[in-house]
Amino acid sequence: MSAPKPSANSNFHMPSEDFRKAAEQLTEWIIAYRDGIEKFPVKSQVLPGEVAKSLPVHPPENGESFDQVLKDVERFILPGVTHWQSPNFFAYFPANASEPSLLGDMLSSALGIQGMLWETGPACTELEIVVLDWLAEMLDLPAQFHSRNNGGGVIQDSASGATLCAILSARERATNFSANENGVGQSLTAYTSAHAHSSIEKDIKIAGIGRKNLRLIEVADDFTMRADLLEKAIEQDKKDGKTPFFVCAAVGTTSTLAVDPVEEIGRICRKHNVWLHVDAAMAGTAAICPEFRYIQRGVELADSFVFDAHKWLFTNFDCSCYYVADRAALTNALSITPEYLRNTATESGAVTDFREWHVPLGRRFRALKLWFVIRHYGVEGLRFHIRQHVELTKWLASEIKNDDRFELSAPQSLNLVCFRLKGTDEQNQQLMSALNKSGKMYLSHTKLNGKFVLRLCVGQTKTERHHVEQAWEMIKAEAEKIA
Amino acid sequence: MSAPKPSANSNFHMPSEDFRKAAEQLTEWIIAYRDGIEKFPVKSQVLPGEVAKSLPVHPPENGESFDQVLKDVERFILPGVTHWQSPNFFAYFPANASEPSLLGDMLSSALGIQGMLWETGPACTELEIVVLDWLAEMLDLPAQFHSRNNGGGVIQDSASGATLCAILSARERATNFSANENGVGQSLTAYTSAHAHSSIEKDIKIAGIGRKNLRLIEVADDFTMRADLLEKAIEQDKKDGKTPFFVCAAVGTTSTLAVDPVEEIGRICRKHNVWLHVDAAMAGTAAICPEFRYIQRGVELADSFVFDAHKWLFTNFDCSCYYVADRAALTNALSITPEYLRNTATESGAVTDFREWHVPLGRRFRALKLWFVIRHYGVEGLRFHIRQHVELTKWLASEIKNDDRFELSAPQSLNLVCFRLKGTDEQNQQLMSALNKSGKMYLSHTKLNGKFVLRLCVGQTKTERHHVEQAWEMIKAEAEKIA
Repeated sequence: MSAPKPSANSNFHMPSEDFRKAAEQLTEWIIAYRDGIEKFPVKSQVLPGEVAKSLPVHPPENGESFDQVLKDVERFILPGVTHWQSPNFFAYFPANASEPSLLGDMLSSALGIQGMLWETGPACTELEIVVLDWLAEMLDLPAQFHSRNNGGGVIQDSASGATLCAILSARERATNFSANENGVGQSLTAYTSAHAHSSIEKDIKIAGIGRKNLRLIEVADDFTMRADLLEKAIEQDKKDGKTPFFVCAAVGTTSTLAVDPVEEIGRICRKHNVWLHVDAAMAGTAAICPEFRYIQRGVELADSFVFDAHKWLFTNFDCSCYYVADRAALTNALSITPEYLRNTATESGAVTDFREWHVPLGRRFRALKLWFVIRHYGVEGLRFHIRQHVELTKWLASEIKNDDRFELSAPQSLNLVCFRLKGTDEQNQQLMSALNKSGKMYLSHTKLNGKFVLRLCVGQTKTERHHVEQAWEMIKAEAEKIA
Repeated sequence: MSAPKPSANSNFHMPSEDFRKAAEQLTEWIIAYRDGIEKFPVKSQVLPGEVAKSLPVHPPENGESFDQVLKDVERFILPGVTHWQSPNFFAYFPANASEPSLLGDMLSSALGIQGMLWETGPACTELEIVVLDWLAEMLDLPAQFHSRNNGGGVIQDSASGATLCAILSARERATNFSANENGVGQSLTAYTSAHAHSSIEKDIKIAGIGRKNLRLIEVADDFTMRADLLEKAIEQDKKDGKTPFFVCAAVGTTSTLAVDPVEEIGRICRKHNVWLHVDAAMAGTAAICPEFRYIQRGVELADSFVFDAHKWLFTNFDCSCYYVADRAALTNALSITPEYLRNTATESGAVTDFREWHVPLGRRFRALKLWFVIRHYGVEGLRFHIRQHVELTKWLASEIKNDDRFELSAPQSLNLVCFRLKGTDEQNQQLMSALNKSGKMYLSHTKLNGKFVLRLCVGQTKTERHHVEQAWEMIKAEAEKIA
């Protein structure tokens, strides 16, 4: 393939035959990358500025060949990649893409649809409704979240974005749309556990509620929200003339994957007429297996629910699945219809326009990748992997428990284990640094009860028993050196 | 390829050899689709519910083959696709993907990086900084938006999301972070033209400002904002004890692509210490050509600027390029650092963590597709197409002007022409319906001075002279029938 040059016949576009060759070349590159991923250091070893320095300061005046670009990917980009797709990636949360997902997303890019209105992408809208109903069935979500009732699901960019929509819906319900009309005022109060994800605070600030009006409810010894303290806080705020409007319960906190007592929290919310949002960002996926559905106890009392298929469901980012019990509460909070978006389909009332279900107007055809994943694996294949990840985590937790040098720092929950060396914070930090610098595995940390704790999350697509076993061997070997 | 079945050797994943075949099959499908796209009706002809009805109600228990899935794409999805990539798509705004962009996005999916922190994706972060600096140079944006100064660019999901960030930064600057802390209150006021995009109102509501605190400033005869009325409104609000904090100027309104007088507006903003955000969502791209840089007059007075590479720059969704003059004003408004995101790179102060630059925490490697596009076309190739689109629009506008049956409804601006039959609204609506139902072209509408007006936007990747000529022939032929 030569560089595209202007000529009598050229319009600078990549001709189909070049695209065919480039796609083939890239496919081979991807296969080699995925098959050989374990030879790279999981966590990139570049220094700040190193990648930027290797790239030209100015854009090219003339086009370059695909060969050249792919060579530069190898030389300049790859060293700066932290390999989230490595089976030895145990940090933060998984972002476990899969081959069917890549194919679905490639098709989505090629169709290049803007599905902001049903009118501008009927299939984009309807496949999303169908696939999110499938998922609701797969997770055994309560009936209020199915599109055949008053609710339904929508794909959002992130749990942060979805939770923002929940806050806005709750805000408008509580103020009878006065916040949308007149501004928020300063009397609304929201509640979440002290272990909730940082996005709750971020969203509360975005929505104009004010950080001081977000109550971080203390957690019990197992790091779940104390429902008794939640109710006390709500009652106190009411006495003080505040308007409690929103509670976010975590099905799986970020630090320890603790599952808040949603049923108790839900009863309190109903009693005080407060919106209940359930953030099941990573853990939600587990409910595909009947034996893990205990995490959803009480979800039938929720107004909204979110989990990320782009974390632990083999679907590449972005694919956050957001469900509401009352879709009108969502669309009324976000809807605006200027003349240039009016159309007969919308006015017939027979269609869903997903632009009213989230912050952005534009939206790509994200349901395709999810559809490809579910159809490739089948429910059975997805369960197989989720079970395996939980199984491996359990095994690791029991190894840690039985090793005198270590302690579990929180109850092992699903695919996450929190642990530490019985020693100082510095020693644990040293342990983490050594493991991550080795390039052979990558894990992250948190603080629990003031102590530095390692988090190891098993959820990568290709993670198998021997990866977890090897990680454990390395942890023990490094601990040996530190002790 | 057979359906994936559980067996002693199977773990349900798609083996590399199957992925190779599937990717090849899909590549051929995409080539055939793009080469043959003109044989499909541009606007999907399905009825509401038709796609959903064709799909199974329940998810598959067992996996299915890729062949089967691709067959279903053909049978059930394709009829419900509105072909945004057709050269005969003239509706709304272009979403002009290109082959290099598809390849870049495929690589992004395969790497599957979460670039929320520099630490979790150094190359993802640094390539984005470099490419957005390239773009700033290509558009000749003022120096304050370059990363080497106090500003910089970031890729966001949409102009809606970017404008929300601008509002939040402005809100916090105006309240000395009191809105983030205590809630918004009801005294802030914002301003935009009566012809601004609906996302401004949506974002103002999201940020808790209240729709009633957004002043829609009247436009002049050419549909640009009247700066004199803007200043009056600001002064009146100040007298009334309000705090003017945010102005959004349009470089290209949605209805007519009118360019607000940014320089005058900017001077007023400086005088009254109000944040100026410039929304150049579609039109911004034109500044790649020096002869169109008049649209940016005064942008050096702006605090923030957004344009969508996913509209008119051959890069598939999502790729909204957001620039700020003072990156601290943005990150201070959005930053939260919980323990589990702390890391030595961030604490060194030597790196950029893009999670603080937008609403979502997670982010995929979007700079790749933009980098692929710029390198494939070169600045010269991109200019070639932008010029051609504007040229064709000019030609069409002059044809319309010279035809007694039609009138231009607004000054032709860059790649958009607004026109109508000299006749009733019903006749114009009839004209649009007939054209869109023909399947041979797709255009949309707006209302100007109370009248129904057709909008024809030239910006699809593969749109050439004969497509615009054919569209004009069809418009005339349908008009003939109506008259």
